[in-house]
Amino acid sequence: MTSNKELRDLLDEVARGDLDVTAAHRRLMDALRAAPYEDLGFARVDHHRSLRQGFPEVVLGLGKTPAQIAGIAAEIAGRGSSLLVTRASTTAFDAVRQKLPAVTYYEEASIISLRQQDVAPGRGTIVVAAAGTSDLSVAEEAACTAELMGNEVVRLYDVGVAGLHRILGEQARLAAARVVIVVAGMEGALPSVVSGLISAPVIAVPTSVGYGASFGGIAALLGMLNSCSSGVSVVNIDNGFGAGNIASLINHL
Amino acid sequence: MTSNKELRDLLDEVARGDLDVTAAHRRLMDALRAAPYEDLGFARVDHHRSLRQGFPEVVLGLGKTPAQIAGIAAEIAGRGSSLLVTRASTTAFDAVRQKLPAVTYYEEASIISLRQQDVAPGRGTIVVAAAGTSDLSVAEEAACTAELMGNEVVRLYDVGVAGLHRILGEQARLAAARVVIVVAGMEGALPSVVSGLISAPVIAVPTSVGYGASFGGIAALLGMLNSCSSGVSVVNIDNGFGAGNIASLINHL
Amino acid sequence: MTSNKELRDLLDEVARGDLDVTAAHRRLMDALRAAPYEDLGFARVDHHRSLRQGFPEVVLGLGKTPAQIAGIAAEIAGRGSSLLVTRASTTAFDAVRQKLPAVTYYEEASIISLRQQDVAPGRGTIVVAAAGTSDLSVAEEAACTAELMGNEVVRLYDVGVAGLHRILGEQARLAAARVVIVVAGMEGALPSVVSGLISAPVIAVPTSVGYGASFGGIAALLGMLNSCSSGVSVVNIDNGFGAGNIASLINHL
Amino acid sequence: MTSNKELRDLLDEVARGDLDVTAAHRRLMDALRAAPYEDLGFARVDHHRSLRQGFPEVVLGLGKTPAQIAGIAAEIAGRGSSLLVTRASTTAFDAVRQKLPAVTYYEEASIISLRQQDVAPGRGTIVVAAAGTSDLSVAEEAACTAELMGNEVVRLYDVGVAGLHRILGEQARLAAARVVIVVAGMEGALPSVVSGLISAPVIAVPTSVGYGASFGGIAALLGMLNSCSSGVSVVNIDNGFGAGNIASLINHL
Amino acid sequence: MTSNKELRDLLDEVARGDLDVTAAHRRLMDALRAAPYEDLGFARVDHHRSLRQGFPEVVLGLGKTPAQIAGIAAEIAGRGSSLLVTRASTTAFDAVRQKLPAVTYYEEASIISLRQQDVAPGRGTIVVAAAGTSDLSVAEEAACTAELMGNEVVRLYDVGVAGLHRILGEQARLAAARVVIVVAGMEGALPSVVSGLISAPVIAVPTSVGYGASFGGIAALLGMLNSCSSGVSVVNIDNGFGAGNIASLINHL
Amino acid sequence: MTSNKELRDLLDEVARGDLDVTAAHRRLMDALRAAPYEDLGFARVDHHRSLRQGFPEVVLGLGKTPAQIAGIAAEIAGRGSSLLVTRASTTAFDAVRQKLPAVTYYEEASIISLRQQDVAPGRGTIVVAAAGTSDLSVAEEAACTAELMGNEVVRLYDVGVAGLHRILGEQARLAAARVVIVVAGMEGALPSVVSGLISAPVIAVPTSVGYGASFGGIAALLGMLNSCSSGVSVVNIDNGFGAGNIASLINHL
Amino acid sequence: MTSNKELRDLLDEVARGDLDVTAAHRRLMDALRAAPYEDLGFARVDHHRSLRQGFPEVVLGLGKTPAQIAGIAAEIAGRGSSLLVTRASTTAFDAVRQKLPAVTYYEEASIISLRQQDVAPGRGTIVVAAAGTSDLSVAEEAACTAELMGNEVVRLYDVGVAGLHRILGEQARLAAARVVIVVAGMEGALPSVVSGLISAPVIAVPTSVGYGASFGGIAALLGMLNSCSSGVSVVNIDNGFGAGNIASLINHL
Amino acid sequence: MTSNKELRDLLDEVARGDLDVTAAHRRLMDALRAAPYEDLGFARVDHHRSLRQGFPEVVLGLGKTPAQIAGIAAEIAGRGSSLLVTRASTTAFDAVRQKLPAVTYYEEASIISLRQQDVAPGRGTIVVAAAGTSDLSVAEEAACTAELMGNEVVRLYDVGVAGLHRILGEQARLAAARVVIVVAGMEGALPSVVSGLISAPVIAVPTSVGYGASFGGIAALLGMLNSCSSGVSVVNIDNGFGAGNIASLINHL
Repeated sequence: MTSNKELRDLLDEVARGDLDVTAAHRRLMDALRAAPYEDLGFARVDHHRSLRQGFPEVVLGLGKTPAQIAGIAAEIAGRGSSLLVTRASTTAFDAVRQKLPAVTYYEEASIISLRQQDVAPGRGTIVVAAAGTSDLSVAEEAACTAELMGNEVVRLYDVGVAGLHRILGEQARLAAARVVIVVAGMEGALPSVVSGLISAPVIAVPTSVGYGASFGGIAALLGMLNSCSSGVSVVNIDNGFGAGNIASLINHL
Repeated sequence: MTSNKELRDLLDEVARGDLDVTAAHRRLMDALRAAPYEDLGFARVDHHRSLRQGFPEVVLGLGKTPAQIAGIAAEIAGRGSSLLVTRASTTAFDAVRQKLPAVTYYEEASIISLRQQDVAPGRGTIVVAAAGTSDLSVAEEAACTAELMGNEVVRLYDVGVAGLHRILGEQARLAAARVVIVVAGMEGALPSVVSGLISAPVIAVPTSVGYGASFGGIAALLGMLNSCSSGVSVVNIDNGFGAGNIASLINHL
Repeated sequence: MTSNKELRDLLDEVARGDLDVTAAHRRLMDALRAAPYEDLGFARVDHHRSLRQGFPEVVLGLGKTPAQIAGIAAEIAGRGSSLLVTRASTTAFDAVRQKLPAVTYYEEASIISLRQQDVAPGRGTIVVAAAGTSDLSVAEEAACTAELMGNEVVRLYDVGVAGLHRILGEQARLAAARVVIVVAGMEGALPSVVSGLISAPVIAVPTSVGYGASFGGIAALLGMLNSCSSGVSVVNIDNGFGAGNIASLINHL
Repeated sequence: MTSNKELRDLLDEVARGDLDVTAAHRRLMDALRAAPYEDLGFARVDHHRSLRQGFPEVVLGLGKTPAQIAGIAAEIAGRGSSLLVTRASTTAFDAVRQKLPAVTYYEEASIISLRQQDVAPGRGTIVVAAAGTSDLSVAEEAACTAELMGNEVVRLYDVGVAGLHRILGEQARLAAARVVIVVAGMEGALPSVVSGLISAPVIAVPTSVGYGASFGGIAALLGMLNSCSSGVSVVNIDNGFGAGNIASLINHL
Repeated sequence: MTSNKELRDLLDEVARGDLDVTAAHRRLMDALRAAPYEDLGFARVDHHRSLRQGFPEVVLGLGKTPAQIAGIAAEIAGRGSSLLVTRASTTAFDAVRQKLPAVTYYEEASIISLRQQDVAPGRGTIVVAAAGTSDLSVAEEAACTAELMGNEVVRLYDVGVAGLHRILGEQARLAAARVVIVVAGMEGALPSVVSGLISAPVIAVPTSVGYGASFGGIAALLGMLNSCSSGVSVVNIDNGFGAGNIASLINHL
Repeated sequence: MTSNKELRDLLDEVARGDLDVTAAHRRLMDALRAAPYEDLGFARVDHHRSLRQGFPEVVLGLGKTPAQIAGIAAEIAGRGSSLLVTRASTTAFDAVRQKLPAVTYYEEASIISLRQQDVAPGRGTIVVAAAGTSDLSVAEEAACTAELMGNEVVRLYDVGVAGLHRILGEQARLAAARVVIVVAGMEGALPSVVSGLISAPVIAVPTSVGYGASFGGIAALLGMLNSCSSGVSVVNIDNGFGAGNIASLINHL
Repeated sequence: MTSNKELRDLLDEVARGDLDVTAAHRRLMDALRAAPYEDLGFARVDHHRSLRQGFPEVVLGLGKTPAQIAGIAAEIAGRGSSLLVTRASTTAFDAVRQKLPAVTYYEEASIISLRQQDVAPGRGTIVVAAAGTSDLSVAEEAACTAELMGNEVVRLYDVGVAGLHRILGEQARLAAARVVIVVAGMEGALPSVVSGLISAPVIAVPTSVGYGASFGGIAALLGMLNSCSSGVSVVNIDNGFGAGNIASLINHL
Repeated sequence: MTSNKELRDLLDEVARGDLDVTAAHRRLMDALRAAPYEDLGFARVDHHRSLRQGFPEVVLGLGKTPAQIAGIAAEIAGRGSSLLVTRASTTAFDAVRQKLPAVTYYEEASIISLRQQDVAPGRGTIVVAAAGTSDLSVAEEAACTAELMGNEVVRLYDVGVAGLHRILGEQARLAAARVVIVVAGMEGALPSVVSGLISAPVIAVPTSVGYGASFGGIAALLGMLNSCSSGVSVVNIDNGFGAGNIASLINHL
């Protein structure tokens, strides 16, 4: 009862006398109450997410036990939806593999995935640029997320601003991108520089890479929020998944 | 000398003997040195921005004197580029109008603008949703920016989460948008709620609206960065312009 | 069409043939879309708040123009609802009085109010205790709010912990309260002390009173959040209204 | 000598000559000095707490050794009072069980408890709503506390705002509650949404769930303090016990 | 009825039959309830402070209206107590002078004072050392407070650590002090240096002098709290009064 | 050459011809350069501290290796000075005991000590009051420090403000103290309450006890710095040693 | 008596009998006590600074009254030293000009100066680069300071990273500098980029230019402290003077 | 093709007909695109750094795996460049030694190094002063860095301001330095004191040494940024490498 047509059909049945009022009333009330999710007690798995947001519900592994993750994963994959678990340990992977032997583990990205038939391809390429070698795990979380959501991804790693020629030498690939994700820790200056070179939107991901006054990524976060290049929007510290997801939303427009 | 073709033509001339080596050398060196900006002493106006980023250089009025703003504005408009000055006071408007009588002032948005022939239309609509009446000036900065950059804008104001039926009642218009800008102060919860309802990317703008522990917008900013909805990216506190610009970049893809 | 009964009646009409399917369909769709608020452009006045939350929508004056406040106030009062505007300047009061001559202004509390017939009396008394003379305006915001919402209020002012005998001398009145609001700046220690003496819930309001390392009320806020007395919950810095409202909700249980 | 009557009786005895002045003086002085607690050296166990605050002294296990916890627990239970130890490790549970074999351990809540005859039943139901699966341990601390203090508790878990239909589908149970505890990490938006739907007071508990700019719960804490719904008061990050206790105080009014 | 003797006398009267039980009961109850303060509505003036803490109640002018200050001042002075009002504007001084023509105003210290016969002399000298010229108003608040409380004060101003010979040249006067107050803004290094040179306790006062990363005195406050010299304790930013008062307490031991 | 007399004697020798100018010059220069400390390479042990500050140099164990601590300890004790090492692990104790078998270890206080003949007795008693059982290690650091520096110490533990009768029952012992150290975590309210009851100076020690918004002791620290009782000065979070040392300095005046 | 030679001469006189021991003793003691500064009461003017640090004492105008500034300025200039007053208002300039008619005021830099014969020329050029037009006043404070201290200064303004070609076009002038000062607000990325291009040391000056999450320059400060280019050191927010001074110290090496 | 001469030669060849236009065009385009770095996939090793910045690329070991470090190290050393790896664990050292047996490990400094023929000697001495024994590892990182870059280094350790005679006794060595690095934790006061004594530039390094309100080095960092001595610039907390590098840059001027 989630479409106009179903509602009209019901009313037609009532009008024709094919459906008595009490039954119609109950069906209407049921439809209004219907929960499009499965309640596992500790979690409510959202089966309408793909309709509503273009990709099935993604599981944030952080703070969940391997058993909880495996339970949710089985529920999602069991309905034929693609599976994507982020911040997943190898232990969680083992637990999921027990239930879903076909899953893949992307170690550098800490992602568990099972690709099914429900993913539409993106329209252009997404560049993931990372300032330093230490930013790779976050960059890989972004890149794998975007790939698993159907996008073609180009990786440009270790192109930080201390040696400007490295990013300047990649201008062609940057210019060809439909969206650019820029991952950087420390002072987080790379998104401003990249955004100044291109006309595509830039999603900036601050990382907790650094020490001392980097304050676990605050310095990079503030740098990106204050970017003097106006094409930069920002996600949470180390949130590679979020950046990959947003870039994919844009690339599917 | 900024294209392949110009370079090849020069080499042809040298090969043909139409151009002697000394002159060719000087022309090559000049081209490499050529600064695509006008140096006003206190500012360097960037005339290649439109080529590089799709819209002429935008002037941030904050921290500049009316005379400086008027000088930069005249330089930009004089080259036939559209003009957009943000955070502009009425005094700055008066100074600009002296030089450019055709400019318009959007008071609620604090924007000075002069539309010329160089703006391409966006592809879909951009929704600008604001949580409360106090967020209007930031929302208007975003909305006016997006409109001046060629986009169709739908405004949904005073739809904060304390009365959820207000935003739920606008689901149709939200679902029709290609990008959604959500402006909110206080706890900044609206972007999460909106993003959960749609599949378009959400640009969240925290505002400094609030008091006490809102800390001038920090509470809203942190709320948005930690959104449990993964389609949300964030710009600086009160940065309506940035949100409008990014939304426009996406809507021109 | 917001009750079970209205829905059943409609279905009965359809079953009886008194209502054709197209009209029934339209009425059902309309009901689902019906917005229980008035859209003033800059604000959406919520007329169902009283049903949903026990008191009509309250207007936060902060960040709204006098004209906006007056417009919203007229809309609320015009429906017969009681009016409560907080953080209201005398200028806002003048603007409201133009439209609603019967309104009252509580200067120390910065509250504009118009009491109508829709307020139910609370069940017991609410004590508002304030640590120092400088906390009075916040304390008055709490006390006036609670009174205007139908509660009997007892004020105990200047009873801070530096002279413990002052609060110890008021134990009888504290013990008689159904809820206690405690307002304090500086180190914010009073709520812990009061809560240790009684069994009623304590709503703590940190104020921005202090200087230096009080950081505009952060010291008091943190003190209250870390109270070693477990009966203390906390609202935002200077949020006398919130405390008064919550105390009233509890006192109406 | 803690009541009017005892005092008058003493004076009567003196007047009748049944009690000499020196003895009367000593008894009066003793009464004024009497410490209603047991001094264990490292802790002073408060035996009047139940009279003063409606529930015996609760032990915060954090920062105490298992031996200290066991000593305090034995002292409390030995007087016939109900026992409640929060933030208790399994090691602490083992130590307490040595002395009090009848105690129960609630593992997810990290609570040790021994229910005796001194707990009065609450008047209505308390709902504990949690935004995500990772918030469960804090939610359970709140729920167990409330139950052990004599209240009926309804649990609504994994109802965060990213999928609004989950909380909207529970409106009936929310509306039936006398108090609602809302537990959430990340952006902490759920209390605002819940409070906007009901007229009962909401006790909000921010959790340290999240990463990056959640700053160990600061983002959620600030979000809740700045709630645009005025029925929300807040306790410390991860303070499930405090929320359960306050909800119980209210539910016993 | 605040001493042993009064209590015994009462019991004797009852034993002798000179006082009936009802009257004795009432007097005992009255004594227990007696408030040793005057309730002005907006303030409770504490007349026992001098007995309890060695100096009459001091009035913090900050956040009080001139009328409130004058009212409290008259109440204090009217009982023969010395008057000390800190953070007092000239307007407050004018209001107090209306009621108490004999008061003095220390402009640099922003102190209003009226010395009466109730101040005991301190035992040694108190040195007040200030790092820079900009710290003078805070230093004067400390120095005037100490003087008005009966202490001899030596001022050493502009002796900051950038020119170490200035403080090294004053070692004799430092060594002769019983307590030393050190006032400094910016990096707040002076207390560590001074404390390393002497054996007297050092009370450090951070000031809000500075700009940028001094954050209104936070840098100096943190510097002082982390002093590598272990004889340094600290008061709030700009709290010259507190430092003067504590130094006086020590100097009266 | 550190006294007037030595200088005059040298000049006399020169005048008498008993000392030639070159030798006199060298001796004067040597005296000006003489370092009153032993350079161990990694540390410079200060042998004049006792003269300058009343107690030999104290060793902060934190951040030093056991070997470094043992080396410094041997150097200090070898000169006949009393030894005091704070923040010392049992491993450090073992290393020191190898070189100085007579040392004592105070486990709860994490202090290594060797008392020699160079400590003068303090004049009165020092009270160390602690709010909760979890504050004991910091309180013991303060109490042991004060005792080892020659003072009589009275301990009042678990007297926090949530049960006010506990501290009120100890007023006699508080009133008898010459200095009071108050140790508290969480909201840090105890120093204000204690200081309001007595005329002795209060040294407040915030502890890192707490969780969530206690931020490792920041809440307690801010509470104490903003104390509404003006007799309170503050030391660093968990700095029991500093408080004990300052209290001893005052008690030796 | 501040040099070896003076000391030896004195000893020679004593040895020759030209100076008696008492007089020699007094002269030695006087020399040791001699204060190389003038005590104005509110300030101690340091006349040895030029010998010790290469430039006479500089006056920070912030927080000093015009009269105080004029008094200190007269004292400095009266001894023949060059005068440099920073953060000076026009009012302060007027006060100084009364006493020293020859002084100059640099309005954009807020500097008062009087150049005398005591300034040595620097060895190379100092580049002052500023990211945006709004950073000019801080950049001018740095540039004027360096010029007044004897250095040749090259200004490169409005060369922020959003348009990278602007700074890349100035590589020749950057490469020719002996020291480079980089002034930037917002994300403060320019110093990293500049430092990556050259081998000279970079002094970075964060400015308070920006809004929202720039937090008055904190974002820029953190960005610079976390620079991925290792040739960058940082001064306080808006501290143009400090940068100019340090650059001058380096350029005089 | 990176010099004028190469460009002219090419043009001459074209003019002479020795080079056809297509080949010339390709060579010009190649030269413009040439990347002066080696792309290892996870890192881009910069072989032009030595030319551009005077020392080969330095490797920050933090956040890189031993294998990554060894790979980068081999690449650098293989080209004949000196190797410097900071923040290197012994495990990383073992991995590098496998590939480059000649490398040295400086344990206290956590530095791996291989000196080759490409380092020019500095001009004067660099002093590294450290306040306390706990600051040694950071001080050694600075000192080793400076030595490996060709500078003579003088170490002055444990010269903190609590015992001023220690640093005053080293004035001769300080005065002889061309640059001074000052390393300090806690309140970070030493740089101000040192800078006040000398005319050389001071590079201040805050360390994370301390506890409580040192906040991992924030207190020291803020103290140094607010230094009242104007010759102090600051690097990140614990950034000994940065300070050593900058000091070396200055010492090579």
